[in-house]
Amino acid sequence: MLAGDPSYTAGVSRGPFLSSDVAVVGGGPIGLAIAWRCAARGLRVVVHDPAPGSGASHVAAGMLAPVAEAYFGEHELTALLTESAARWPAFAAELTEASGADIGYRTEGTLMVGLTADDLAEARRLWAYQLGLGLPVTPLRPSQLRDREPALAPRVRGGALAATDHQVDPRRLVPALRLAAERAGATVVREPVRRPADVRARVTVVAAGCGSAALTGLPVRPVKGQVLRLRAPDGGPPGFRHVIRGYADGEHVYLVPRDDGEVVVGATVEERSDLAVGAGAVLRLLRAAIDLLPELAEYDLVEAIAGLRPGTPDNAPILGPLPGRPDVLVATGHHRHGIVLTPVTADLIADLVTGADPDAIGGPFRPERFVVAAADATASPFRPERHVAAGPGEGFGASGDATRSAQ
Amino acid sequence: MLAGDPSYTAGVSRGPFLSSDVAVVGGGPIGLAIAWRCAARGLRVVVHDPAPGSGASHVAAGMLAPVAEAYFGEHELTALLTESAARWPAFAAELTEASGADIGYRTEGTLMVGLTADDLAEARRLWAYQLGLGLPVTPLRPSQLRDREPALAPRVRGGALAATDHQVDPRRLVPALRLAAERAGATVVREPVRRPADVRARVTVVAAGCGSAALTGLPVRPVKGQVLRLRAPDGGPPGFRHVIRGYADGEHVYLVPRDDGEVVVGATVEERSDLAVGAGAVLRLLRAAIDLLPELAEYDLVEAIAGLRPGTPDNAPILGPLPGRPDVLVATGHHRHGIVLTPVTADLIADLVTGADPDAIGGPFRPERFVVAAADATASPFRPERHVAAGPGEGFGASGDATRSAQ
Repeated sequence: MLAGDPSYTAGVSRGPFLSSDVAVVGGGPIGLAIAWRCAARGLRVVVHDPAPGSGASHVAAGMLAPVAEAYFGEHELTALLTESAARWPAFAAELTEASGADIGYRTEGTLMVGLTADDLAEARRLWAYQLGLGLPVTPLRPSQLRDREPALAPRVRGGALAATDHQVDPRRLVPALRLAAERAGATVVREPVRRPADVRARVTVVAAGCGSAALTGLPVRPVKGQVLRLRAPDGGPPGFRHVIRGYADGEHVYLVPRDDGEVVVGATVEERSDLAVGAGAVLRLLRAAIDLLPELAEYDLVEAIAGLRPGTPDNAPILGPLPGRPDVLVATGHHRHGIVLTPVTADLIADLVTGADPDAIGGPFRPERFVVAAADATASPFRPERHVAAGPGEGFGASGDATRSAQ
Repeated sequence: MLAGDPSYTAGVSRGPFLSSDVAVVGGGPIGLAIAWRCAARGLRVVVHDPAPGSGASHVAAGMLAPVAEAYFGEHELTALLTESAARWPAFAAELTEASGADIGYRTEGTLMVGLTADDLAEARRLWAYQLGLGLPVTPLRPSQLRDREPALAPRVRGGALAATDHQVDPRRLVPALRLAAERAGATVVREPVRRPADVRARVTVVAAGCGSAALTGLPVRPVKGQVLRLRAPDGGPPGFRHVIRGYADGEHVYLVPRDDGEVVVGATVEERSDLAVGAGAVLRLLRAAIDLLPELAEYDLVEAIAGLRPGTPDNAPILGPLPGRPDVLVATGHHRHGIVLTPVTADLIADLVTGADPDAIGGPFRPERFVVAAADATASPFRPERHVAAGPGEGFGASGDATRSAQ
């Protein structure tokens, strides 16, 4: 699979990891799961990351929510989310077995609620769309809602159950994946990769989240998310069991309860790349959370943190070989869906590494959609200027604003 | 001045600081200012604190606000606050000179505002009281308010100026006081004092904040305060210059701008002794702050912290010799007023150390008010059971709930 890039073959003797079959750039859940799957197939795998698990996954809530996350106009993405979520029960069991670690996988399901009449009207429009796709959404009467979660505020007007939308704890998931990958034979090297030529392997997998843009030129941009972590007082568990996703006076918020008392409250979605925690964002998250579940006012606020999701122009991930470089596979751009998409991404990429036809990846997810097909086919595809980002309304593959790739 | 306590005299050879004239227990602003003043008078002074400046002052906003803090029924306290505030300009100048440090002393004055009609009615009642005491409160028309602080929310209904209510930065004040004290010859020892017999000096000054209760038996209890620190974006100064104290939908909040871009938002007043930061408290503080000054929504939230003020049953400090132990002087119980009361406290205690008549301290502030006069006069006054705490409505010196001293 080695490409004809002269700098690549000429540099053979330089790299310390030449003997590996697969170099994975990025030690988040995506990269580690790929490493685990590849190592389990007998490949020699090296994961490169100066701080594994310190990126978006450290901030993420870990909702596995293909139903609640099914938004208008994202049919293919919804299908991929659903497919990956369906793999989660077996994936979680296998990972727990392989790592011996509790990953906080919980299956109580997700309640979607609306606080005011306006909120409920907005929510119902989405639920109708989700039902129209055949997704398992069960509208609940207020009394049914309160039977399930008595801690909900009395003024919550209505809700629905997405029973198959589960959760996992990303801060437990990442070390478990690392342990499983290492037990399967993979190596994790705590070093940054500044350019693809820094690694030497038969196949390089770029799973570097927002860092993937600089490595591939693909239009992966940071989408800032601010998240709070609360903790139930007195060391007890939270007073609710479902993931709760709510519309509260126009604010969208989710509340994810963990067995250990933690409640994750999120999240903002901002076209910014700083990691500052904003007073206004914290106010909006706390107000919406406490409006929906008043007892949260008595919880401790133990963390306010911001992370950067790897977003793409069409909100879908980028999976598959980089055009013109079959030795470089991309697994990035998972945006809000990195945790739920971990199993399917790992399986697809491991398949490609072991020789599967790249056409197995659906067109809506392949890197080609952001690459100008007619551009100079001999230049290194690692160079950003060969790629252009299509804006959401511009269609894919069209020539466009090349500066987007630097966002 | 050594008392007849056998354990005290018998232990002479044990203490490493026997040769000092004054042992100050507590390295907060009160203790350090006393040490500075005593050392400047030629006394050998040792300050004992395992972590100087880590107590209430680390959390405090540093308002010097005898006017805005003049509450109903606290005439004597208001007079002491006013007296100490009047000493602040010279104290600040002298300290800046002695330490070479900027202590963030600012004299733009304080705007007191009301957000809603109800808030304004409540505020005006207090302003009328303050005016009745002859304090410098200047009611402002809304246009005058906005001329002074254009960043105030348009819906702020009205306000008043307390031009003489200034501010200082406690996190700069404490190291400056320490530097001044050390330059004057005082020594700071980073060791805890668990009982008065741990120190050996001609006079012991207990200025240990909430820790003073265990050392003296006096009814000093922790009063929890939660405070936020915001920071103006882009490294600039805050968009307002006055300290702003507001009533916002029934919530009392203050906003203290610093030259370096910091804005302190405070504070809760809670009868609790934990240091947890509560989700509900943060929500209330942020909501009130942003309601009054909308641009704060764009500020970074850089800290949420809780501290414990040393409260007393009558909200007034405890100053002077412990009854029956003229060698033990108390300077504690400053509650919300530790920073503003620092100069007067330091001067009064230094006077006592150098022989002034204890009657110079007004009766409303002396330890006797919490001590049962008729109790066994020969037992050590350090033992808590000799002291009883009077509840706010019980009058001073009455026998009462001795358990209060353990709060």
